Amino acid sequence: MNAEFIFVGTEILLGNILNTNAQYLSEQCAALGVSCYYQTVVGDNKDRIRDTFLAAWNRSDIVILSGGLGPTEDDLTKETVAEALDLPLLLDQKALDDIRAYFARKGYEMPKINEKQAYIPKGSIVMYNDNGTAPGVICEKDGKCAILLPGPNNELTAMFEKSAKPFLFEKSDCVIVSKTVKMCGIGEGSVDEKIRDLTETGTNPTVAPYAKTGEVHVRITAKAGTEKEASKLIKPVVREMKNRFGDYIYSTDDDVTLEKAVVDLLLANHLTVSTVESCTGGLVAGRLINVPGISEALKLCYVTYSNKAKRKMLGIKKGILEKYTAVSKQVCEEMLKGVSLINKADVVVSVTGLAGPDGGTEEIPVGTVFIGCSVKGKITVEKYNFSGNRSKIRENAVAYSLILMRRCILEYFSEVTFGKEGK
Amino acid sequence: MNAEFIFVGTEILLGNILNTNAQYLSEQCAALGVSCYYQTVVGDNKDRIRDTFLAAWNRSDIVILSGGLGPTEDDLTKETVAEALDLPLLLDQKALDDIRAYFARKGYEMPKINEKQAYIPKGSIVMYNDNGTAPGVICEKDGKCAILLPGPNNELTAMFEKSAKPFLFEKSDCVIVSKTVKMCGIGEGSVDEKIRDLTETGTNPTVAPYAKTGEVHVRITAKAGTEKEASKLIKPVVREMKNRFGDYIYSTDDDVTLEKAVVDLLLANHLTVSTVESCTGGLVAGRLINVPGISEALKLCYVTYSNKAKRKMLGIKKGILEKYTAVSKQVCEEMLKGVSLINKADVVVSVTGLAGPDGGTEEIPVGTVFIGCSVKGKITVEKYNFSGNRSKIRENAVAYSLILMRRCILEYFSEVTFGKEGK
Repeated sequence: MNAEFIFVGTEILLGNILNTNAQYLSEQCAALGVSCYYQTVVGDNKDRIRDTFLAAWNRSDIVILSGGLGPTEDDLTKETVAEALDLPLLLDQKALDDIRAYFARKGYEMPKINEKQAYIPKGSIVMYNDNGTAPGVICEKDGKCAILLPGPNNELTAMFEKSAKPFLFEKSDCVIVSKTVKMCGIGEGSVDEKIRDLTETGTNPTVAPYAKTGEVHVRITAKAGTEKEASKLIKPVVREMKNRFGDYIYSTDDDVTLEKAVVDLLLANHLTVSTVESCTGGLVAGRLINVPGISEALKLCYVTYSNKAKRKMLGIKKGILEKYTAVSKQVCEEMLKGVSLINKADVVVSVTGLAGPDGGTEEIPVGTVFIGCSVKGKITVEKYNFSGNRSKIRENAVAYSLILMRRCILEYFSEVTFGKEGK
Repeated sequence: MNAEFIFVGTEILLGNILNTNAQYLSEQCAALGVSCYYQTVVGDNKDRIRDTFLAAWNRSDIVILSGGLGPTEDDLTKETVAEALDLPLLLDQKALDDIRAYFARKGYEMPKINEKQAYIPKGSIVMYNDNGTAPGVICEKDGKCAILLPGPNNELTAMFEKSAKPFLFEKSDCVIVSKTVKMCGIGEGSVDEKIRDLTETGTNPTVAPYAKTGEVHVRITAKAGTEKEASKLIKPVVREMKNRFGDYIYSTDDDVTLEKAVVDLLLANHLTVSTVESCTGGLVAGRLINVPGISEALKLCYVTYSNKAKRKMLGIKKGILEKYTAVSKQVCEEMLKGVSLINKADVVVSVTGLAGPDGGTEEIPVGTVFIGCSVKGKITVEKYNFSGNRSKIRENAVAYSLILMRRCILEYFSEVTFGKEGK
């Protein structure tokens, strides 16, 4: 069974918005075992919508359209599809009541113009909208179907999840299951090399690596008649990945981010944590606080951006700052000691670096970052050279701070020693 | 003159990547005055690429394709277009030398497989690639042209900027100029209402509002024969916006973000700044440090997430925390006083709130955030109720911290008083 997508909206053609609906629907259909061969974006123009729809209708089993279901004259999707399929539009009383109720909750009366949203192609399934005014529609004809969804991303995803997905699931004869093996502290090149036998020969499951900042994710995807069968195909590959990569893997759970893995490690070992940041300016603390439940572990965090703050709050001697400069192994280590002294947190991470764009020298070019981590007084300081602009350098520094924390905690509490290849 | 885009790549159809090239090319073409009526995504399949290309070639003046220029057998874009236009592929020696040099810089010899990338449709313009191996191509025939660009975003944008844009600029008979008026501290609804006369009747320039977290941007876009003429059309509308919105406008400069506007205000008034954050956990400091040059102004910043940190580092009395709880006007104010005491920074901002997902009560539901700002000792504390998940609530809290800082500084140094409508 195959589907294709049509995204209706001049604002997409003008580049005013990024079409995130496309990625969402692609992922969803792939997971349902529905193949997709084409996606088209077309503006709010009746002739072009009709031509695009008819081409899609003739070559695909399912056509999913999004956008153009609003109340204005520019919203033409439903009218055009109904006409192309020769289905008259009839008033759906529940849809109308829903739209009226939507406005009532906001304290307004429904404008007359919104009435048109309650007209539905004859014989269609209505997908009522919990998050906006436009109902969605599923029209079936000649063994094919057109699925019309609203354009706003929150409305589209909620409606797809609630109504369109169960409908497609019924129609699909197979399921696709994916599992992601998430690694950090190891470079993309090393991972690629070590799994080439799997990526090149695997067809079911397929194995594909994706690089993220400081991380490599390997996605294993299997197609089968049932979810259980698909999972069974994936299992031995995950086991093989664990054999090959061991502690570089921080999770195989979709919901576990790198910061969550670090926080889980802190909580499991009853460790408190403090951060002291210069160039990352609070973003390491910010990522830790992404994780609900961190409050048990998190002690005070500092942003000491200026040399004065480093001196005053951390007690770093002027002489050391002058001799080594702020971006140095020595100052990174002093930043740890200063905070350990004050707080006695079990784990302390410190970051100092040069994010640019100015201030680079031959010895300390822009992108030089020192990250230090102390676990119960055992101190590690590493030097990194990141490339990219100011925000990319800082994003890298934040990711590698989390990676170093994870590595130092694991090394402290077990016999694990990590190679330096991913540094 | 009109163009349409074809994005080639099965990975886009599977949802593995977000098609940011689409937005980039849409924006670029719109700015060049090139209209775009269709965008299509198609997989790495020869028949489907050919059908899609021929449909586009027949109805548009320019067809821009991206992706499928790599060295493997799956990379079919150039071969398919050359065949469709009946142009033989010929070796381009400079392209081959470039690819060899690219590998040499990495310390490898060029694999034999990459040779195919140096074959170019006869008579085409070659766009040499400074960031990868795939050269781009411009094929002209029958008064139309096909522009082939590589898929990776950094290669595509660099090549478009350097080679394709000047080519299209020559062909275009008009330019489109946009100017964005950026506002904060005022709600989208209020802005919509106050500019309805402009958004509904404006055709050249057009006026359109876009909501961002805590901000509203209004984009004014004009089309004319020259840049100067287009700018002349925009000018009176910008003036009118300034009349209507005054100090709610923080910038009309594309490069100025909200944090840059706040930092500029700090530097212009020779003010130092400190932050003391609870639920936003360092993200307010992180946004300020986005701006190069902040180091002159930024004093120490604290993340005091736990009650213990608030007590120990800020000297907030246990009784106050117990009586009012951490998410309260009183504690928000105490957080300011604590830091003011230690640091004597001119401007201090404090944030305490409940980002959830758990811990909400009837009196203090999830999303309750107090933000305080002190300018030279003059304290303002505001209460906010943000909706959304944990990260959305924190994103809002960060944006509104910057907005409150801006408002308090402006109110302190001038006679400006802001309405509360945008709160």
